[in-house]
Amino acid sequence: MSRFDVLTVGNAIVDILARCDEKFLVDNGIIKGAMNLIDGDRAELLYSRMGPAVEASGGSAGNTAAGVANFGGRAAYFGKVADDQLGEIFAHDIRAQGVHYRTHAKGISPPTARCMIFVTPDGERSLNTYLGACVELGPEDVEADVVADALVTYFEGYLWDPPRAKEAIVECCRIAHEAGRETSMTLSDSFCVGRYRAEFLELMRSGTVDIVFANRDEALSLYETTDFDLALDSIAKDCKLAAVTMSEDGVVIVRGDERIRIPATPIAQLVDTTGAGDLFAAGFLFGYTKGLDLETCGKLGCLAAGVVIQQIGPRPMSSLEDLAAKAGLI
Amino acid sequence: MSRFDVLTVGNAIVDILARCDEKFLVDNGIIKGAMNLIDGDRAELLYSRMGPAVEASGGSAGNTAAGVANFGGRAAYFGKVADDQLGEIFAHDIRAQGVHYRTHAKGISPPTARCMIFVTPDGERSLNTYLGACVELGPEDVEADVVADALVTYFEGYLWDPPRAKEAIVECCRIAHEAGRETSMTLSDSFCVGRYRAEFLELMRSGTVDIVFANRDEALSLYETTDFDLALDSIAKDCKLAAVTMSEDGVVIVRGDERIRIPATPIAQLVDTTGAGDLFAAGFLFGYTKGLDLETCGKLGCLAAGVVIQQIGPRPMSSLEDLAAKAGLI
Repeated sequence: MSRFDVLTVGNAIVDILARCDEKFLVDNGIIKGAMNLIDGDRAELLYSRMGPAVEASGGSAGNTAAGVANFGGRAAYFGKVADDQLGEIFAHDIRAQGVHYRTHAKGISPPTARCMIFVTPDGERSLNTYLGACVELGPEDVEADVVADALVTYFEGYLWDPPRAKEAIVECCRIAHEAGRETSMTLSDSFCVGRYRAEFLELMRSGTVDIVFANRDEALSLYETTDFDLALDSIAKDCKLAAVTMSEDGVVIVRGDERIRIPATPIAQLVDTTGAGDLFAAGFLFGYTKGLDLETCGKLGCLAAGVVIQQIGPRPMSSLEDLAAKAGLI
Repeated sequence: MSRFDVLTVGNAIVDILARCDEKFLVDNGIIKGAMNLIDGDRAELLYSRMGPAVEASGGSAGNTAAGVANFGGRAAYFGKVADDQLGEIFAHDIRAQGVHYRTHAKGISPPTARCMIFVTPDGERSLNTYLGACVELGPEDVEADVVADALVTYFEGYLWDPPRAKEAIVECCRIAHEAGRETSMTLSDSFCVGRYRAEFLELMRSGTVDIVFANRDEALSLYETTDFDLALDSIAKDCKLAAVTMSEDGVVIVRGDERIRIPATPIAQLVDTTGAGDLFAAGFLFGYTKGLDLETCGKLGCLAAGVVIQQIGPRPMSSLEDLAAKAGLI
């Protein structure tokens, strides 16, 4: 028995989204497609240069928890906001989606994290994250009963950026494994992999993490190679199960010698790639915790990713449960 | 010579938008399609029942100012926010669109106004407005030089809800007329007309307001009739120029004995009617202050309204200037 299918842990962030042209990224030194970490001063500067925007709750693992719940799964989330208006918005949105969320909001300074997302005409998103209150997440925020009661505990590689979140993660993984549960992580971003390569590999090789999510660039960065097949073979050795997304080329699921390839879901129009990886993980983990075969898990992931990239913002506004049922996947 | 084409004055509001079904409106006593004024307690209650949402700067006249600027017009705005995160978002978005906005943000209590917008499957929006800091707007917020330097000063009927905004409006109209400018208002909402019918008629009949925007329901409510032609004839007598929108039936422009009918712009899909009237006014006033003929003004209004109802949120994310040029209107 379990109370939750998936617990996710991550930086709790409100997204601020606007379109821009390619030149804007160059002029402002923003690495395209990446997560650029910024401090408060740079956040103010970039915001002053940003066009009219819209706001939506985000945060990689938060999007994944919301996605699992949107599929009809039982989800929980740990992540730190401040006691301010953006924090209230974040907490509202994730709870309104039916996700268990009780992490204590701590004071008003630093404020709730925000991510300025610039979407170029090709639909690619470039992230600029001010971590704010996320730096406060630590082991004291671990709700041990929730971890023990979740089939899979999933976390972001991004959590290695704030100072003490990794302590919370190690504790979560210990509790999860003691309770006979599984653990999972996303490598998050190829530059993030560059910052914490050795630690991420250690998490995998020590068995702290069972299931790994990555995209092609992150997998290549992890093994410092340009040979994708080599990266897949390496990841197969280093963890029990991995799903590696390849944008419009779909996904490859890796388990030992198995390679299951699933095509991307056809879409009418690419609007904004924000949340694609997060929603892939949501669909995959929803299927996985329901005991579905890996191919169906992958298809559920592709379905969710295909939905979110056809809208502005990181969490699908339509019912993933309905769409999955219509597609005959659940 | 003038520095501004259009100055607008209104309640400065951040919108919180979510979809809901028809039953939700009934269960929560929300009048469909109307602007429901709510207090802080009801705002908390409704928010606790609202699904996952997205946020976007709104406010009727704010949307109109942003629309004028999006067309390439020179726009200014007066409206009151608090010195809080939502106020910062509001100020950012309107300035980032190129609108002159300098109204002093006053303290943190009451907080910046918000409007919970529930969008039903038919695309209709039902507004639930907590006025917050908007109650602080008064004559001291009138930038006299801006009023005198704007070809048209436009305001919302909604401004009769907060206590002192109407004093600011009367002052604006006096300054505008002394400077040889024109004044304009939107009747805002049929229930708002019901609350302030006598005052709105007095504004028109006294010549305080030159140009009136209304939709069919508001025009019928103003004259307490079900005879639309009678309402049009009455409005023609009571002001110099009026534009009355009729949703998918387009718009009729009324000036003395003239009746210019313009069809609605065909759309692919109705997503969310939020901002339709505000953007119609933006297109119309942009054309009007450029000296274009009334039919072209109406077409510009219909174009902008047609754009905004095909997206979530009240301010078009695409360039109205480009779309108007492509349509051969400017």
